[in-house]
Amino acid sequence: MKERIFTPGPVELPDRIREVLGRQIIHHRTKEFTEAFLETRELFKQLVDCAEDNFVFFASSGTGAMEASVLNFFQEGDTVIAVVGGKFGERWSELGYRWKLKVIDHHVEWGKSVDPEDIRKLLKENPQTKGVLVQMSESSTGAYHDVQKLAQITADTQTLLVVDAITALGVYNLKPHQWGIDVLVGGSQKAFMLPPGLSMLWFSQKAKKRLTDRAYYFNVKEELKKQTEGQTAFTPAITLILALRESLSMLLEEGIEKVEKRYRLISEGLKEAAERLGLKILPENPSISLSTFLPPNGIGADELRKEALKLGVRFAGGQGKLKGKIFRISHMGQDIMDFPVALSALELALKRLGHPVKLGEGVGAYLEVVSKSHE
Amino acid sequence: MKERIFTPGPVELPDRIREVLGRQIIHHRTKEFTEAFLETRELFKQLVDCAEDNFVFFASSGTGAMEASVLNFFQEGDTVIAVVGGKFGERWSELGYRWKLKVIDHHVEWGKSVDPEDIRKLLKENPQTKGVLVQMSESSTGAYHDVQKLAQITADTQTLLVVDAITALGVYNLKPHQWGIDVLVGGSQKAFMLPPGLSMLWFSQKAKKRLTDRAYYFNVKEELKKQTEGQTAFTPAITLILALRESLSMLLEEGIEKVEKRYRLISEGLKEAAERLGLKILPENPSISLSTFLPPNGIGADELRKEALKLGVRFAGGQGKLKGKIFRISHMGQDIMDFPVALSALELALKRLGHPVKLGEGVGAYLEVVSKSHE
Repeated sequence: MKERIFTPGPVELPDRIREVLGRQIIHHRTKEFTEAFLETRELFKQLVDCAEDNFVFFASSGTGAMEASVLNFFQEGDTVIAVVGGKFGERWSELGYRWKLKVIDHHVEWGKSVDPEDIRKLLKENPQTKGVLVQMSESSTGAYHDVQKLAQITADTQTLLVVDAITALGVYNLKPHQWGIDVLVGGSQKAFMLPPGLSMLWFSQKAKKRLTDRAYYFNVKEELKKQTEGQTAFTPAITLILALRESLSMLLEEGIEKVEKRYRLISEGLKEAAERLGLKILPENPSISLSTFLPPNGIGADELRKEALKLGVRFAGGQGKLKGKIFRISHMGQDIMDFPVALSALELALKRLGHPVKLGEGVGAYLEVVSKSHE
Repeated sequence: MKERIFTPGPVELPDRIREVLGRQIIHHRTKEFTEAFLETRELFKQLVDCAEDNFVFFASSGTGAMEASVLNFFQEGDTVIAVVGGKFGERWSELGYRWKLKVIDHHVEWGKSVDPEDIRKLLKENPQTKGVLVQMSESSTGAYHDVQKLAQITADTQTLLVVDAITALGVYNLKPHQWGIDVLVGGSQKAFMLPPGLSMLWFSQKAKKRLTDRAYYFNVKEELKKQTEGQTAFTPAITLILALRESLSMLLEEGIEKVEKRYRLISEGLKEAAERLGLKILPENPSISLSTFLPPNGIGADELRKEALKLGVRFAGGQGKLKGKIFRISHMGQDIMDFPVALSALELALKRLGHPVKLGEGVGAYLEVVSKSHE
């Protein structure tokens, strides 16, 4: 049976990407690689819409670039606020503790979004704060944290706004430079539709002044110097760099505004479908990268996922304290017309588990949204 | 023109590997991945011939696993001896300094191998030494460091022998466990014939007792716990893990003894060819993973490489202080019958640059060695 994955990373690889991945390798210390790499960097610059070359790629998963953010922009003993509203918020906090920052954990109920006013207050109480660490899209709960508002708060302070955008980059028309974000982290296996193993780290001029030399493999200063010349300090993930060029071309061909619109439409459509099917969406203010559902009373989230998987459709489960309580349907890398399949699997699974469903209802609700907004 | 790469990483990808790389992605938090990963681990265990599961993989290039060795097995202030006889020896030293170890740099002339007796003496003078950091195959010079002898010296001490085997693993019939090595580092884009982006770290029971919690992304303890159960702490390089399974199968189908014999034969053949063509081999005791040549008087190494490249054959140049002075031909991932091409390109390049060559001489010398040892 064909498997269709609706997990928030890895996501299905488009044929154009698979074609690049299957190619013979090229050596990285060559003009050919340098040209391809510089072209990839140009495309990335277009995507994040900035004038400077303040970004580097690492051969690592996204967590590597998160660690790089903590290591390169902060010193031992620096105070940071970690917004902890899910598993990835916990990761920020853990990284801070591991590298001996003074971490103020700002707990947010899982599924809720951080109130920017709380951060404003915390910063007033702790004016020594050097950084606020947050997710733009907390994919363990599906919540969106309003980093644009947070950036307005940190803008005129000494505080860096450090944003894990691993499941937001390539989804939102994200303008870190204009918005006033200081550090932005991305990963390959999300909306870039690549295998895992490549991470991205963008930073502002303000952040650049803080660069330390604590890291070795994840040293931003060293990498920046090399990468702006089309090389890397250590062996790069050659194949993934070449595939990223393809992926960026795809995103820019569609246009990032249209990409965001597509994900927003999917998000709204799934919300309507959920309502019609008697499911609740967990987050109040959901990220448009994925939808997070609470199953109806009496039905286990993991049971539901198992039933859907019997039809070849893979949803993601909960993580951490939400394990077994929710299921998640990722939008990343998906087209509008991929969701009739996801919703059909959901309806059939619900029905088999005894939930009263009129088959087609959820799909119908989704299609109504799509048809209204369809151009 | 078809390009043939004879560089010591990345090396040409076999078709069996490319087929795996081009496949649709699978999710890593699945039974399917867990089974594949555990199978990969079983094959790796066969390759390094050990009973325990003391090894982890990281989504990083080889340098990441080198950093992991320094971070996980040593504490701030620990004394280590770094054998610095090339660019990668320098990397050990740099990593030691970066993570605040007390580094005793033991300099070895580039191209020479370390004298194990020097290390014995140094250890007597510095009994507090916690580790000796060395390359098995120093690929910047092509020298082999006798890690088996070094292991006999460190065996009954508190000193860990930490071996960068990035260009040795998958080449030599390496038995870290039996030899008494404590930490062994490998990388995907060398004799495993994969793209870069996956690194390996094997360690002894003695090393296991030293495990610290300094690292986050490169935390061995955390990864070990997860990986022995077929999972990973962070998103793994899924595609490369699946391709490693294929690569290990290929190595074990041929048999690592035969693989080593193949590389040894290539090494001897190229040595004879070099002699016939009036070239010198730089290292006294060369690694069988690559051959490092000094060009004849009056001919630049990089000129020679350029001429060979015109024929589609890519050799590697020198690094660090050997830049422009040597050229290197990697054996990794190559078959015995790949070298008539490499040597033909070398002969033609030498001739074009005015070196007196009777075309076919080098190839002939190589074939003579091969024919004698051919089974």
